[in-house]
Amino acid sequence: MTSNPTTSNEIHFRPIGIIHSPFHEKTQTPIQPPRSTADGWVEVFSEYAEGLDDLDGFSHIFLLYQFDRSQGYALRVQPFLDDQPHGLFSTRHPCRPNPLGLSIVRLVSRQANLLQIAGVDVLDGTPLLDIKPYVPEFDAHPQARSGWHANRSKD
Amino acid sequence: MTSNPTTSNEIHFRPIGIIHSPFHEKTQTPIQPPRSTADGWVEVFSEYAEGLDDLDGFSHIFLLYQFDRSQGYALRVQPFLDDQPHGLFSTRHPCRPNPLGLSIVRLVSRQANLLQIAGVDVLDGTPLLDIKPYVPEFDAHPQARSGWHANRSKD
Repeated sequence: MTSNPTTSNEIHFRPIGIIHSPFHEKTQTPIQPPRSTADGWVEVFSEYAEGLDDLDGFSHIFLLYQFDRSQGYALRVQPFLDDQPHGLFSTRHPCRPNPLGLSIVRLVSRQANLLQIAGVDVLDGTPLLDIKPYVPEFDAHPQARSGWHANRSKD
Repeated sequence: MTSNPTTSNEIHFRPIGIIHSPFHEKTQTPIQPPRSTADGWVEVFSEYAEGLDDLDGFSHIFLLYQFDRSQGYALRVQPFLDDQPHGLFSTRHPCRPNPLGLSIVRLVSRQANLLQIAGVDVLDGTPLLDIKPYVPEFDAHPQARSGWHANRSKD
């Protein structure tokens, strides 16, 4: 079954802040937060700062952001961590139909509209779209089956 | 420190599919997948179907979607699971500056452009923006500190 995507359903988002990191080149940038030892900070535009209240009770947060330096996409890609091509949606590759990035980072501290974070894996200047708290009850599935990652060629 | 958001940086996304669920009213809809016993299915528009290859090796997937029936937002909200107000970004409330939803659901099976999923917590007809594989090595933090959720008033 296939629905017809209409052309009138464009969705408009606008950055709520900027992610700052030590990384200016894609090739420098760590693959996923657990592989990163870098600190960074999230600057939330001051008009949204009040929305950060209570966030510092959480040790980990989701950052949702725009892969603003990705261009185009392919439906089969060879991920950084394997030498075999895979379906795009089974990878975290930055070039996607909607270039939406997702990282779970450690929240070190908050001061007003600024968040200090650890384990940053994004390019400096990345536009931030949303922040959500990481709640282990909802989000931690340590026994999940990890597909091609279980047999990947690179570490 | 505050940067100036420019007005020219609007980001345009377009649905890549539709999430189908048994839920037609917000008040019926479970709060987060672990609290849902409902099955649903994800219809990815056929032009993107090839990108689903290899996804069925993963037991859990991230769905990123538009909260298309949310309107406006407040920076302090009383979440469904507490009787105290909290900063918006410390909650998963659907009314956000960018109404982006994130659910980690169980992937039951894939057939061509259709994914059967379990633990669905979204309204029927929700526009899908992206799918990513859940990789425990990157995404499972069972010991994460869960802020106000640890002392919330409702279960």
